[in-house]
Amino acid sequence: MPDKKQLTLYTAKICPYAQRTEIALFEAKAEYTRFEIDLSNKPSWFAPQVNPASKVPAVAYGGPIVPPDQPSPESVKLAESLILVEFVADLYPESGILPSDPVERAQARFFIEVFNTKVAPGFVGFLLRGESFDALLKGLEALQGLISKDGPYMLGDRFSIADIALETALTNEVGAFEIGEGNKCWEAFMKDTKFEKLIKYHAALKERESIKATYDEAYIRDAYTKRFNIVRAQKKAATTSV
Amino acid sequence: MPDKKQLTLYTAKICPYAQRTEIALFEAKAEYTRFEIDLSNKPSWFAPQVNPASKVPAVAYGGPIVPPDQPSPESVKLAESLILVEFVADLYPESGILPSDPVERAQARFFIEVFNTKVAPGFVGFLLRGESFDALLKGLEALQGLISKDGPYMLGDRFSIADIALETALTNEVGAFEIGEGNKCWEAFMKDTKFEKLIKYHAALKERESIKATYDEAYIRDAYTKRFNIVRAQKKAATTSV
Repeated sequence: MPDKKQLTLYTAKICPYAQRTEIALFEAKAEYTRFEIDLSNKPSWFAPQVNPASKVPAVAYGGPIVPPDQPSPESVKLAESLILVEFVADLYPESGILPSDPVERAQARFFIEVFNTKVAPGFVGFLLRGESFDALLKGLEALQGLISKDGPYMLGDRFSIADIALETALTNEVGAFEIGEGNKCWEAFMKDTKFEKLIKYHAALKERESIKATYDEAYIRDAYTKRFNIVRAQKKAATTSV
Repeated sequence: MPDKKQLTLYTAKICPYAQRTEIALFEAKAEYTRFEIDLSNKPSWFAPQVNPASKVPAVAYGGPIVPPDQPSPESVKLAESLILVEFVADLYPESGILPSDPVERAQARFFIEVFNTKVAPGFVGFLLRGESFDALLKGLEALQGLISKDGPYMLGDRFSIADIALETALTNEVGAFEIGEGNKCWEAFMKDTKFEKLIKYHAALKERESIKATYDEAYIRDAYTKRFNIVRAQKKAATTSV
């Protein structure tokens, strides 16, 4: 087991990518310092001293114990949610979130790849560009085909990095946008017996302690509602002025 | 060390992604069966029996020893070049291509992430869409900033998954398209003292036995020349007919 050093996580409740890292840390029962970054008003020291890309999640690992808003140049700075999930899995092999069998590791990573290349683009197209949700449902179908038939998780009864990467779409987002097309998509998904396995998977994720502990539903619903109200108002203004 | 089972690699000399997996297998001194797929005329059994996405590289692992063109349903089928590189690293930890330190693993994976999100899009924009090569050079600069100052490899004297993922752009492709803009880009890169570290890195990769052994320069130059001649002829025909 590797030696553990201090770990400071820079994160934001509203960000599902950051939540991935928090879930991994929760599953690993890791001790760490959590620092909330206000994404709409980032502190000036964050990009130069923690993450040049100015994104969450980011980690400062090792170095002296310092206040999170005064990061030490001696700590190693790491970023990118899936890399951080693997990092936590490497630091805490006893957490079991990274399977020990090389074949299962490859299968878990392939599941994430299908999510990234098939589900996420369909989701972004639907939610942010107003495209049809057909591509999203097709992506979800491909994903479902990779879930263990025994369930409830991708690898059967073991919760792994695959499930951590996935909660993004399945727990937080689908249905967050509850008017018009959003509802139709959600219904198409929930009522189609074709998706039975994926719906069970979704329910199992929602019950997982690590996901419940890192997901503040009311806060996120409120934040997204505000954000989409602004987007809709801008759209309306643009249409009116044409 | 995990037990080894039979491993069959479906690959194509012309594909730099497939080469990644071959480099990893070479570095690991792995025993495996290599099967060349003609990408312009794929065998009919390949997609249904090996990789539904119909891409190389793909691996059949385990199951009985069978002729590669008659894959057994009992073997596990795996795909995606970077996942396969990690799979080989997991099967052969003694190869050292995956560093044992969690921080170095995260840094190697971050290097690959920068390549995928900053270098590759700039490269594709330039080579396939005729855009300016500024984005490519900017991506290469970001990448260079992550190479160990001691060199020659990303992690210093140890060759790792980071270097395996990278040869794609740096050894095969840049300069493969040797007329007009291709030359200008190559010169901008080679003559700029700013890129000194990256040029040394490139030279070190070209000398690595695993890269030499898996890269048939004459074959690839010939194949790409033919391919780009067709693209240019089509472009010309399109312009003439307008």
